[in-house]
Amino acid sequence: MPTIQPRVLKGFRDSLPEMELMRAALVDKLEKVFNLFGFVPIDTPVLEYAEILLGKGGGETDKQVYRFRDHGNRDVAMRFDLTVPFARFMAEHVDQLYLPFRRYHIAKVWRGENTQRGRYREFMQCDFDIVGTDSASADADILLTAAEAMKALGVGDFMLRINHRALFNRFLAHIEAQQVSTEILRTVDKLEKSGTQATIDLLSTLIAPNLAQEVIAFIQKEDSFEKTLDKMLSYCTPGDVEASIARDRLRDIMDCVSAAGYEQNVVLDPSITRGLDYYTGMVMETSLTVMPEIGSVCSGGRYDELANLYTERRLPGVGASVGLDRLIAALEATGTASKTDISTEILIINQENATLRELHALAAKLRSAGYSTEVFPETKKPLTQYTYAEKKRIPLAIFAASPSGPFTLRVLSRRENLDVSDFEGLRGILERELHG
Amino acid sequence: MPTIQPRVLKGFRDSLPEMELMRAALVDKLEKVFNLFGFVPIDTPVLEYAEILLGKGGGETDKQVYRFRDHGNRDVAMRFDLTVPFARFMAEHVDQLYLPFRRYHIAKVWRGENTQRGRYREFMQCDFDIVGTDSASADADILLTAAEAMKALGVGDFMLRINHRALFNRFLAHIEAQQVSTEILRTVDKLEKSGTQATIDLLSTLIAPNLAQEVIAFIQKEDSFEKTLDKMLSYCTPGDVEASIARDRLRDIMDCVSAAGYEQNVVLDPSITRGLDYYTGMVMETSLTVMPEIGSVCSGGRYDELANLYTERRLPGVGASVGLDRLIAALEATGTASKTDISTEILIINQENATLRELHALAAKLRSAGYSTEVFPETKKPLTQYTYAEKKRIPLAIFAASPSGPFTLRVLSRRENLDVSDFEGLRGILERELHG
Repeated sequence: MPTIQPRVLKGFRDSLPEMELMRAALVDKLEKVFNLFGFVPIDTPVLEYAEILLGKGGGETDKQVYRFRDHGNRDVAMRFDLTVPFARFMAEHVDQLYLPFRRYHIAKVWRGENTQRGRYREFMQCDFDIVGTDSASADADILLTAAEAMKALGVGDFMLRINHRALFNRFLAHIEAQQVSTEILRTVDKLEKSGTQATIDLLSTLIAPNLAQEVIAFIQKEDSFEKTLDKMLSYCTPGDVEASIARDRLRDIMDCVSAAGYEQNVVLDPSITRGLDYYTGMVMETSLTVMPEIGSVCSGGRYDELANLYTERRLPGVGASVGLDRLIAALEATGTASKTDISTEILIINQENATLRELHALAAKLRSAGYSTEVFPETKKPLTQYTYAEKKRIPLAIFAASPSGPFTLRVLSRRENLDVSDFEGLRGILERELHG
Repeated sequence: MPTIQPRVLKGFRDSLPEMELMRAALVDKLEKVFNLFGFVPIDTPVLEYAEILLGKGGGETDKQVYRFRDHGNRDVAMRFDLTVPFARFMAEHVDQLYLPFRRYHIAKVWRGENTQRGRYREFMQCDFDIVGTDSASADADILLTAAEAMKALGVGDFMLRINHRALFNRFLAHIEAQQVSTEILRTVDKLEKSGTQATIDLLSTLIAPNLAQEVIAFIQKEDSFEKTLDKMLSYCTPGDVEASIARDRLRDIMDCVSAAGYEQNVVLDPSITRGLDYYTGMVMETSLTVMPEIGSVCSGGRYDELANLYTERRLPGVGASVGLDRLIAALEATGTASKTDISTEILIINQENATLRELHALAAKLRSAGYSTEVFPETKKPLTQYTYAEKKRIPLAIFAASPSGPFTLRVLSRRENLDVSDFEGLRGILERELHG
């Protein structure tokens, strides 16, 4: 008698074959693009010292972290992102590696978050970064990799929205609002969700209402990259050197992006701030034209110091994170995900008139020819075997008493039976039905 | 100032790009074979209710399991294998799926084991199973999938050693040693490690010395499949029905395996028992001719009940587990793993005489042609850039001031520079150097 109720923890879920095949196809395409740009994969442990993951003190994320004492009474935690483990990884291995180091890491992370609003406690992250260089070329590479990934995934039109943190910071310095810069960044970052008026109201609790209006004016996009850039500079103190450097950096980045043919997919958007103190240079978000409401599907930016908690080596870098779950939602919505869930191509029907020996000899022949094939393991009524094939989305079934033929091929979608006398004839029909 | 020492927990390790690329190449080959046989991927949560993973009581494995209280004070644990989560998964989802269900699952598991003898506390498992059928065809499919996987991995000659648990059990019944069958199975399972005399000595503590000798005689292989089978039957009670059924099953399995062309890779070996009570039918191990000392690289067998802790549905099945770490060791030892660690194919040298715009335009052209390409992000001495390329095992470097040429291609391994006037000429040389 069963004694235990089979169930998963709240906020966790199984991945059934259909979802798993879709995710695998998506990850495969991403990896090909990462490889094309020279990124290499790494992996790090799921469990680490809590001190490593959370720092000596520990901040707001702590409450969400799965943290416990292991068998040796060590204070350990499960990783909650891929950035902190990467920082520790670089500090530890920089001498065995080379700089600049381009890595990607696709792996699960865990956060004991509130599961309302459809949040999961276990989810996949996909990060790619270039560390060890502060250059426009690397910034551009992150944008180009993101753009090439979107193209490879076939999610339709997309837009990379970029900005430079220094321009926002120099503007805030000019209006003397630096003390509340973090709060302003966070507020502006939520502009799309909150709406303009609510944002002005919130900003007015931080700075004078006329300055709140000025912030809103600053973050409006103009007609072109250069016009937006000019507008942003005009809101800073005239002659501000840091602002000029940021402007030149953005121009250099756009130059590389244009040269690589992605000018139409990158826009300068002063409202993009990525509300994290972490970023210091270019920041970026990616929106899909077909589903802007799902938010950014690839976000990131440049940071000054990856690993200063763990090493004296300065490791400036730039990187981004792909939102796999959002992309899967987009692929499902646009129907682009449909064909990936076929696994087996051919089911060999198991009937009394053939021995297992003959059916397995035929299966081996079909697999040698590259067809994903399985023998139904028991002799059952054809209808039972068809039902199995339909549930598993197997498109074709074959009746045979010998591996050399004759064969009857059943096209399950059309409920049509085709008679073929020999294996060559069978291959011709298989090609037409499966790849035609 | 850095304040935290970067380090990983004992028994855990980072995976650097070289290892990660090797693992990815191996997993890719395995997945292609699984797909060819109609297996589909699934995934399950890393964290589950401790009750689900350990049962109501909990046995010897408990001590090794990472178990703790989560934020909601739930008694949770990290999975220590992929079999128990699969049993829970099938009990929970059987009505959304179809039977027989062929799944594979490649994922990490955690055990707080003693780290002496090179054991890791975090490692990858790779399981494939067919559940919902008790048939020779499914047993054969597991053997054929294992054989095809070994062939695809290119690990050289291999041997699948199979047996049937019922034959051993009926032999033990005949010599009236059933009460100590578990202990005998465990002892015999370690024969290769312990040696014959030590095994006889150990067996003699369980049964009479003459019976211990009989056990050793029983588990000797004979010249052929049929001779070994006859010998095994002759050690059972004459006319034993269960033993005859097991014999017929082994013959049917061998029939399928021979039909599919793998007769030479499968041997009946009565010493294979897989010392686990779990198995009830065919059992199998896989040894590599080139490295027998690493032990079985793919092991498994048939079981009566996958999920009886969680459901009343009877779910008989057969499956096996691939030893990824052992296979990586074998691939390293045989040198088959060498070529997988090339990532970037071309480094575009960054020199003052070219703008980033031109270098990125060239990179885009090369990527469109399918070459993994990166622009060195900063203008540095060629030697610095060569050193980077060599450390990352990038085979080729290109000097260019324009995306249309002329180019100088440097073959880093030969320290040879080749001048090319246009892009078409460059492509010809790239093909020859990279794929020639």
